[in-house]
Amino acid sequence: MNAVIDYINTNRDRYLSELKDYLAIPSVSALPQHAADVRRCAEWTADELRRVGLQNVKLIETPGNPVVYGDWLGAPGAPTILFYGHYDVQPVDPVELWTTPPFEATIRDGEIYARGAADDKGQIFMHFKAIEAHIKQTGKLPVNMKVVLEGEEEVGSENLDNVIKAHKAEFAADVLVISDSPMFDRGIPSICYGLRGLTYYQIDVRGTSSDLHSGSFGGAVANPAMALAQILAQMKDKGGRIKIPGFYDDVRPLNEQERSEFAKLPFNEKRYRKELGAPKLFGESGYSTLERVWGRPTFEVNGLLSGFTGEGAKTVIPAVAMAKVSMRLVPDQDPEKIGKLFEVHLNKIAPKTVEVKVTRMHGGKPWMTDFNSGYVQAAARAIEGAFGRTPVFTREGGSIPVVSTFQEELGLPTVLFGVGLPDENAHAPNEKLDVSNFHNGIIASALLYQEIGGANGKSAGELVSG
Amino acid sequence: MNAVIDYINTNRDRYLSELKDYLAIPSVSALPQHAADVRRCAEWTADELRRVGLQNVKLIETPGNPVVYGDWLGAPGAPTILFYGHYDVQPVDPVELWTTPPFEATIRDGEIYARGAADDKGQIFMHFKAIEAHIKQTGKLPVNMKVVLEGEEEVGSENLDNVIKAHKAEFAADVLVISDSPMFDRGIPSICYGLRGLTYYQIDVRGTSSDLHSGSFGGAVANPAMALAQILAQMKDKGGRIKIPGFYDDVRPLNEQERSEFAKLPFNEKRYRKELGAPKLFGESGYSTLERVWGRPTFEVNGLLSGFTGEGAKTVIPAVAMAKVSMRLVPDQDPEKIGKLFEVHLNKIAPKTVEVKVTRMHGGKPWMTDFNSGYVQAAARAIEGAFGRTPVFTREGGSIPVVSTFQEELGLPTVLFGVGLPDENAHAPNEKLDVSNFHNGIIASALLYQEIGGANGKSAGELVSG
Repeated sequence: MNAVIDYINTNRDRYLSELKDYLAIPSVSALPQHAADVRRCAEWTADELRRVGLQNVKLIETPGNPVVYGDWLGAPGAPTILFYGHYDVQPVDPVELWTTPPFEATIRDGEIYARGAADDKGQIFMHFKAIEAHIKQTGKLPVNMKVVLEGEEEVGSENLDNVIKAHKAEFAADVLVISDSPMFDRGIPSICYGLRGLTYYQIDVRGTSSDLHSGSFGGAVANPAMALAQILAQMKDKGGRIKIPGFYDDVRPLNEQERSEFAKLPFNEKRYRKELGAPKLFGESGYSTLERVWGRPTFEVNGLLSGFTGEGAKTVIPAVAMAKVSMRLVPDQDPEKIGKLFEVHLNKIAPKTVEVKVTRMHGGKPWMTDFNSGYVQAAARAIEGAFGRTPVFTREGGSIPVVSTFQEELGLPTVLFGVGLPDENAHAPNEKLDVSNFHNGIIASALLYQEIGGANGKSAGELVSG
Repeated sequence: MNAVIDYINTNRDRYLSELKDYLAIPSVSALPQHAADVRRCAEWTADELRRVGLQNVKLIETPGNPVVYGDWLGAPGAPTILFYGHYDVQPVDPVELWTTPPFEATIRDGEIYARGAADDKGQIFMHFKAIEAHIKQTGKLPVNMKVVLEGEEEVGSENLDNVIKAHKAEFAADVLVISDSPMFDRGIPSICYGLRGLTYYQIDVRGTSSDLHSGSFGGAVANPAMALAQILAQMKDKGGRIKIPGFYDDVRPLNEQERSEFAKLPFNEKRYRKELGAPKLFGESGYSTLERVWGRPTFEVNGLLSGFTGEGAKTVIPAVAMAKVSMRLVPDQDPEKIGKLFEVHLNKIAPKTVEVKVTRMHGGKPWMTDFNSGYVQAAARAIEGAFGRTPVFTREGGSIPVVSTFQEELGLPTVLFGVGLPDENAHAPNEKLDVSNFHNGIIASALLYQEIGGANGKSAGELVSG
């Protein structure tokens, strides 16, 4: 294993230089004018998988952008890693806010700046180089490896589900590894063991068949914008607790170990509040901010629209009012069940003076892995070996829908193994990746394969059960 | 007086034909491309005032469209009427919904269809012809008459206040007459003796300095759209009563005479509800629909905007949320005082987790005249004489800001003397005026001058005190 790490250290500069080439391809999946760039990026990625020593490399075509696949299956008896990532990137606008051009990767103060540096090219490239180091130095990998890289993550992964369903046998593995998330903070490597789920709705309220003059008709009919406000106000109490009956029934309480681990994290509430520009932090009482964001469900209003919203004043009673609302869910809440409870409550509180229509938009299940499981502990040892520090265990307030998809379709446990930083500007100008984290991430990836490969004498079965 | 009425009856067809010429001028004040048409209309109007026999006719220039002025002051000792109206019209879009072109007046089924037919060219033309009939037949008017016609009523009368202030002495009169409103219903002529006032606000709520990802930050901070919903919900109880402390203190209760007169009106709640397309009529309990619209104050949400309002779903916690709200006021509520009560209540209920800014947009005082006053009774007799039916006394839910302006600047009592119909489509396609109402309106106007002129032996002072 030392030879592998030596190889990584020796090739540090070359890796950076190659990463710059990769980042130079503007694979912006959201913009049609970049369609040819996205395909070029897929081909470059496939060539790179071949270069680092993977086999069976191919593009899996979809109605959209291709999925790049490659594997190495020369470790019979050892576990199989399915590594998922994406080669597409976010748009760069407003481009004038970038200090250096988004597709000319530039190193400043130990950070590499480019669109895709952290999300996700830099982090998948880290694995390419870890694979390369193993294969070039030892002729093999300590695990079986399947790499699946999509080109539509930034536009909703619309075709990924079908690709997974159509390639169930080909993608079969023991554990899913994803490197597409930040660590807790600079110098504090972390492993994320939980994600929230989601259920998203649109509420449409109609009062009358057209907008009315608020003078001639004010007092005659219900105002749908007011009815909507009254409905929304009855979804949450002033203490931040959601009032939908049964909403909390299936919430798995934060356990004492989690709460004490979260409490130890160097989280500066004051700095956090200041960075958000909020007068106060606020949420369900009885929980810390991290507990609320990571381990408690929410009800948020995502959008409101009704009547006259331009400059000045228009004396109108709106005909309709619309709200977008969503709930973040935690284990063991089920989006379907929560959706039903929401709709029952909504119909119960909706005034009979207006028509209320509710439309389900989309949803996803919450996800959590046992942080005492063998794979998670293997990842922890790999990170400690590379970063010189035991990782902290965190959860995430957001959702990564593919995690649920892989779990449901392939039944895979997941290790979220990200080396970005919270200020990496993933979807904003001046996206960046810390160069040391990139380098240590390659070492950590190489160690992860070794750990999962059973270097410590553990079988795949043992790894799962912890 | 019979000679005057004979003249009107004899010239009926010519009047209609001249009105069509007037309606052919597209004096759309809201659209810059019609600026020349608006001026041409002002000049046509001035020429018409000269033709009917008024003197001192002129255009009073403003930074916008000119005010047309003309007078006849040959009745020393008699009261002076200040007649106000407007020669500009609303835009015609969507023009494809018009059965016949909006600026080619067409008579179908006893209605004259054209933009401006009811609002307000048809109704001011009615007075031009009444003036003409008196002067042509008798060489004089039974009253002194000052006519003030603006060209910016449909765009907020921005320059009218300054014109009134600058011409206080010139505009001095005993009573203001306006014909720019509908009668209660077809065949039910009416006199409107009350208008509601208004105070209009924008509420801006800020949660954070920028939109946040609802996954990564949901649970950490207050949602400004939810805070706004909670604020709005606390403005009104579920029974439709406004919860601002002190809000009802100065409301003049509907008296028994009013309530019994309103109750006698042929108002079909079922048809009204159906026409509005509302599931139910709704408002403050304890009052009929007409009582609520005419004689009770309101709190309406006029607009809502926050976060993501497009197609689909975006998981955002909005940084800001905005509402436009307004209150219709009744005598003796004062917009300034009500505004203060509103702001105090708002600041009291606003959560401290968000920043709330409130901006006053505009306002106007409620107006009511004693329907037993001499001028109102004179108008009632004129209408009965022309329409063969005693007018009903109504109030209006809307506001006519110029009424307050004239009242404040010139101290004038007002007679609202309108012959439109509730379905006249004043601001919609297929605007129309009933041809019989137009004709009877000319007779009623001629009789009104006679009545106010003291033909019945009453002095101006007697007219005011009733």
